[in-house]
Amino acid sequence: MFVSKVNRVFAASIIAGLVLFAPAGAQSSSVASLLAADNGWAKVYAAKQLPQSVGYVDAAGSVLAPNAPKATGRAAIGKLFAEFFALPNVQISWKPTEASVAASGDIGYTSGVYQMSFTQNGKVVPDHGKYVTIWKHEADGSWKVLLDIFNSDLPASPT
Amino acid sequence: MFVSKVNRVFAASIIAGLVLFAPAGAQSSSVASLLAADNGWAKVYAAKQLPQSVGYVDAAGSVLAPNAPKATGRAAIGKLFAEFFALPNVQISWKPTEASVAASGDIGYTSGVYQMSFTQNGKVVPDHGKYVTIWKHEADGSWKVLLDIFNSDLPASPT
Repeated sequence: MFVSKVNRVFAASIIAGLVLFAPAGAQSSSVASLLAADNGWAKVYAAKQLPQSVGYVDAAGSVLAPNAPKATGRAAIGKLFAEFFALPNVQISWKPTEASVAASGDIGYTSGVYQMSFTQNGKVVPDHGKYVTIWKHEADGSWKVLLDIFNSDLPASPT
Repeated sequence: MFVSKVNRVFAASIIAGLVLFAPAGAQSSSVASLLAADNGWAKVYAAKQLPQSVGYVDAAGSVLAPNAPKATGRAAIGKLFAEFFALPNVQISWKPTEASVAASGDIGYTSGVYQMSFTQNGKVVPDHGKYVTIWKHEADGSWKVLLDIFNSDLPASPT
């Protein structure tokens, strides 16, 4: 039994080793740092921390929000985020479900799902949907948002 | 005058040479092929050519349309496209306004604007908005869609 357990641990180590030291090893570490950036951004955004949220965006980045024109640059994006954070009782969370980094490591993308709600005329308005974010690996080693776009899964309101 | 003209042609050749043989040459050619893919996709989509439109999508690709769940794989995406093409008098066009390719050439993205309209209850319903498409450079040299997402610039309908 003890031997068998050791063998299982040994086998698990081999499998872990294969995963860790596969040719994609360097890229896996990039993917991990990219996922950390996405999750870090989600955390400061959920906490409605405006400067920190804008700080995740590249100076030339754009946010493509539904029902609004494209916002490019930190000033325009900061205005968009501030308006969002000012919605009554707004709550938002998102999580990446996929992430990939180019072999060269300069560009990556994440995609995932969001949930949000706010209060309008005393009623809770819920929403959930999906997003795609394109990230640039900056000279300082950080990932910054080049393009962020999202939309709702809910049926359109009748026109 | 003749000499002057020759000199101008010569100077133009030097400038063209600098652009063509700059270090970013390979990437520029990738960007050109990526833009050609985006424009080619827009053309078959505008013509409502279903197999050709689905053919631009990677086998594991996803389309993230507003007011709908994420569609992954060619069967689900074909169904989504067919429903769109079946809208009464539907017309759509898009054009990329930016495109970039990773230094390694394996991943690229385009972003741009779309215009569409269809008929509902005898009235033309217009829309315009923006999109982001992530492309994979396939083994055969073609670009295929990994992720495509878009949303409207128009204000939301009142809930």
